[in-house]
Amino acid sequence: MATKHLFLLAGDGIGPEAMAEVKKLISAMNDKLGSGFVTEDGLVGGCAYDAHGAAISDADMAKAMAADAVLFGAVGGPKWDAVPYEARPEAGLLRLRKDMELFANLRPAICYPALAASSSLKQEVVEGLDILIVRELTGGVYFGEPKQIIDLGNGQKRGIDTQVYDTFEIERISGVAFELARTRKNHVTSMEKRNVMKSGVLWNEVVTQTHKARYADVKLDHMLADAGGMQLVRWPKQFDVIVTDNLFGDMLSDIAAMLTGSIGMLPSASLGAPDVKTKKRKALYEPVHGSAPDIAGKGIANPIAMIASFAMCLRYSFGMVEEADRVEAAIAAVLDQGLRTKDILSEGMTEVGTVQMGDAIIAKF
Amino acid sequence: MATKHLFLLAGDGIGPEAMAEVKKLISAMNDKLGSGFVTEDGLVGGCAYDAHGAAISDADMAKAMAADAVLFGAVGGPKWDAVPYEARPEAGLLRLRKDMELFANLRPAICYPALAASSSLKQEVVEGLDILIVRELTGGVYFGEPKQIIDLGNGQKRGIDTQVYDTFEIERISGVAFELARTRKNHVTSMEKRNVMKSGVLWNEVVTQTHKARYADVKLDHMLADAGGMQLVRWPKQFDVIVTDNLFGDMLSDIAAMLTGSIGMLPSASLGAPDVKTKKRKALYEPVHGSAPDIAGKGIANPIAMIASFAMCLRYSFGMVEEADRVEAAIAAVLDQGLRTKDILSEGMTEVGTVQMGDAIIAKF
Ligand SMILES: CC(C)[C@H](C(=O)O)[C@@H](O)C(=O)O
Ligand SMILES: CC(C)[C@H](C(=O)O)[C@@H](O)C(=O)O
Repeated sequence: MATKHLFLLAGDGIGPEAMAEVKKLISAMNDKLGSGFVTEDGLVGGCAYDAHGAAISDADMAKAMAADAVLFGAVGGPKWDAVPYEARPEAGLLRLRKDMELFANLRPAICYPALAASSSLKQEVVEGLDILIVRELTGGVYFGEPKQIIDLGNGQKRGIDTQVYDTFEIERISGVAFELARTRKNHVTSMEKRNVMKSGVLWNEVVTQTHKARYADVKLDHMLADAGGMQLVRWPKQFDVIVTDNLFGDMLSDIAAMLTGSIGMLPSASLGAPDVKTKKRKALYEPVHGSAPDIAGKGIANPIAMIASFAMCLRYSFGMVEEADRVEAAIAAVLDQGLRTKDILSEGMTEVGTVQMGDAIIAKF
Repeated sequence: MATKHLFLLAGDGIGPEAMAEVKKLISAMNDKLGSGFVTEDGLVGGCAYDAHGAAISDADMAKAMAADAVLFGAVGGPKWDAVPYEARPEAGLLRLRKDMELFANLRPAICYPALAASSSLKQEVVEGLDILIVRELTGGVYFGEPKQIIDLGNGQKRGIDTQVYDTFEIERISGVAFELARTRKNHVTSMEKRNVMKSGVLWNEVVTQTHKARYADVKLDHMLADAGGMQLVRWPKQFDVIVTDNLFGDMLSDIAAMLTGSIGMLPSASLGAPDVKTKKRKALYEPVHGSAPDIAGKGIANPIAMIASFAMCLRYSFGMVEEADRVEAAIAAVLDQGLRTKDILSEGMTEVGTVQMGDAIIAKF
């Protein structure tokens, strides 16, 4: 097979431990299947700041741009709390999203049958849950200008952020949501706050037009984002695909993740537009969980979200659908077998560490 | 007792039905206790638009400003979906908040023991839950300028909203949160997104300073708003008072409300600053639920949130602590007795309508 270039940004905290398990899986695939993956490591987040004073170096940024796909671990930790705003660990991730133009963030919230009982929600509310949050990732209040703190004198400051959305941004993200819905239950729910935000009014209008013009076969609902959050908690199975902006997507996807009872399990994909010539999309794959500095280095982190992110990479960047299915089946199999890292441990199950969990998944692959 | 002027804005949907039950309670208090309430009705929301083309008239706005307290029902419904943005039902509520300078929105999320089983969360997660969300209500992205849709030509538009917070706004809302925490479990959690928003950086800084300068006896934690949403779903009892901005407060308080399994039960208070001379605060009391147009006019709406909002009014606007306690005890008593409106009905309980529920609470008062 053709050589596939993966750029690995393990980052901080439990990022490197989780990434190590993916590396083993990649080696196994190269050895057994001749998958042709070539990997290179870079630095992002606090470790990058420690190394060269920025949350990602220009050299690593260039490698991310050139790779077929980027695998990202996690960034941040108390060590870097006092770092200047521009160099804070998150800035590395935000620069990757912006410079690679990864406008479409796909966050599946799936409740693995073996884990339904570990949710804080009633089992019948979450069992079998399978929703996909499509979050706009390069616009909105994350990147709009002005974004600044102004000194007004007299001990008064003013903090300003700007939410900006253009028609084309809403069009392309809703297009992604509608396309994905067609491969699922054919139902999209768009969420905004059109009752207080002008960007929400435009969002609603453009999603409605895009639907009418190109995706009338898909069922479309609109929900105010606050009501949407409530409905996620009340009865999440009413949703199939949710499409929303950057900030609401941040909140809602984390809540959806928590419903499943296992944030250590959930992957995400961030995709750019297909290149006009090569049709290839820039892409970054990342677990939903953070760097979890409190458990870093102890060998107890759950590597499943990182491994599942690699499965998304196989599916979306390389069209390796069969291999992706196999990775996901291997994860389900070790769970059925009763293996659990500490974060998802429950009575009668077998506690394992990061490495054992990774080994078990690779053995089932 | 001195005359107490209440201005009643029942609004749309189930607002008037719920307000009718409060009116009965007010009459009963006047008759039995000589409480001295004088009420006047006004229009807000869709019904105000139908009557005079604005979501609230200047005359009613003046009455709200002059009253000792405003009781507010709910606004909106599909009938007014196509109304111009400036006259949409919500604009009435937003004008009340802004013109009365009701910067502090208090949203208790209490799980009544009798209802713990009706939450979508596991009983042990929500039983005994008692948290208070203190939401900033007159600033942030709700009111910041520019707020507009610009036509860029070529079929492209740009939607813009602006999040703005000044030091004094953050100082006064966190002061309210700290004061209230002292009457509770003495613990405040402040939530923002300082990792992506400059207003979040300022928020974090000012809350920290306010704490240090005046409330060092209160326990203070900071949490990113997305993580806060997750923690609310995972283990809400870790919180006592949560203080956050207007938009995050909108999302988080609705999620907190849904945890309790009974959004039809939850009241809110919106308070202004104490007047320099009279020490009185402008105030508006409002159920957390909306206008629920689908069940309006059927006599099945739950009036408890509206009645509990009046209890908050007794407590915060008139210092009638004993009476407020009695109203809240009466609500708990009818629930213990097994009476339920449709929205909170469960097996073995007695279904009652809006009027019966109101009567039962008044009888227990
Ligand atoms: C780390 C942070 C900047 C990021 C975000 O807010 O987008 C994270 O919360 C996420 O959801 O990926
Ligand atoms: C009706 C709407 C404008 C309002 C808000 O967004 O503040 C509502 O959702 C609330 O929380 O009171």
